[in-house]
Amino acid sequence: MKMERARIQGKQDRQEERCMVRKENITAVEHLGGGKGTAYVHHIISKEEFLGHGRMYAKVVLPPGTSVGWHQHVHDTEPYYILKGQADFIDNDKSVTKVGPGDCCLIEVGQFHSLENNSDEDVEFMALIYNEKGFLYE
Amino acid sequence: MKMERARIQGKQDRQEERCMVRKENITAVEHLGGGKGTAYVHHIISKEEFLGHGRMYAKVVLPPGTSVGWHQHVHDTEPYYILKGQADFIDNDKSVTKVGPGDCCLIEVGQFHSLENNSDEDVEFMALIYNEKGFLYE
Repeated sequence: MKMERARIQGKQDRQEERCMVRKENITAVEHLGGGKGTAYVHHIISKEEFLGHGRMYAKVVLPPGTSVGWHQHVHDTEPYYILKGQADFIDNDKSVTKVGPGDCCLIEVGQFHSLENNSDEDVEFMALIYNEKGFLYE
Repeated sequence: MKMERARIQGKQDRQEERCMVRKENITAVEHLGGGKGTAYVHHIISKEEFLGHGRMYAKVVLPPGTSVGWHQHVHDTEPYYILKGQADFIDNDKSVTKVGPGDCCLIEVGQFHSLENNSDEDVEFMALIYNEKGFLYE
């Protein structure tokens, strides 16, 4: 009887389950994507928590003089969304565009990009890597 | 000959195609998710650009006294990532947690949540809505 009550109580607890509120997971990454210096990646969800649709969602902080290296997205894409600072976005055709808060840098699946902080202040941007059309991780 | 050159040139232009750098698309939304007042949604990509994996990716600005209403995510999930300010996160079990910069509020598929700005300053957060496991939009 006591056990049965405990079982029912357990079930009700699960129905009333809370979401998870937690701190971002900050990692220092040397030469991010082959870039210069140390970038700080503030992970929001893990790859598993992306439920098969992508592999990264994070805020990235690039201190002055650092960069994300020139890299290709073969089976996924990664729009950058600039939150803070002034950066140089190096496009798939190697042209350079100055970008700042509110700018969105989109690439198509298969294209290359990089981002450089050649300024005196931190650059902060959101990085979201999701899969090409029709592709899901197991 | 001239046309052939133009055709080849055209092809090379496409191979050297640039990514797209553009401004965020800001929309004022009354009663977001059934909430109070006017929220400002800074859209980064469109649903089509999410390639079937989700339906929204945006920075949301909640002025003082406004909120995102209590709403459920049936076939998707929406982690909040707080960028700025202090907000009240209302969880699936209706418990309230004070959240600030760097906090991640995760919900499982099927759960409810809302977010209120009961402070005197703007709250800014990232909203990303992606699908449940195995589900893709056409």
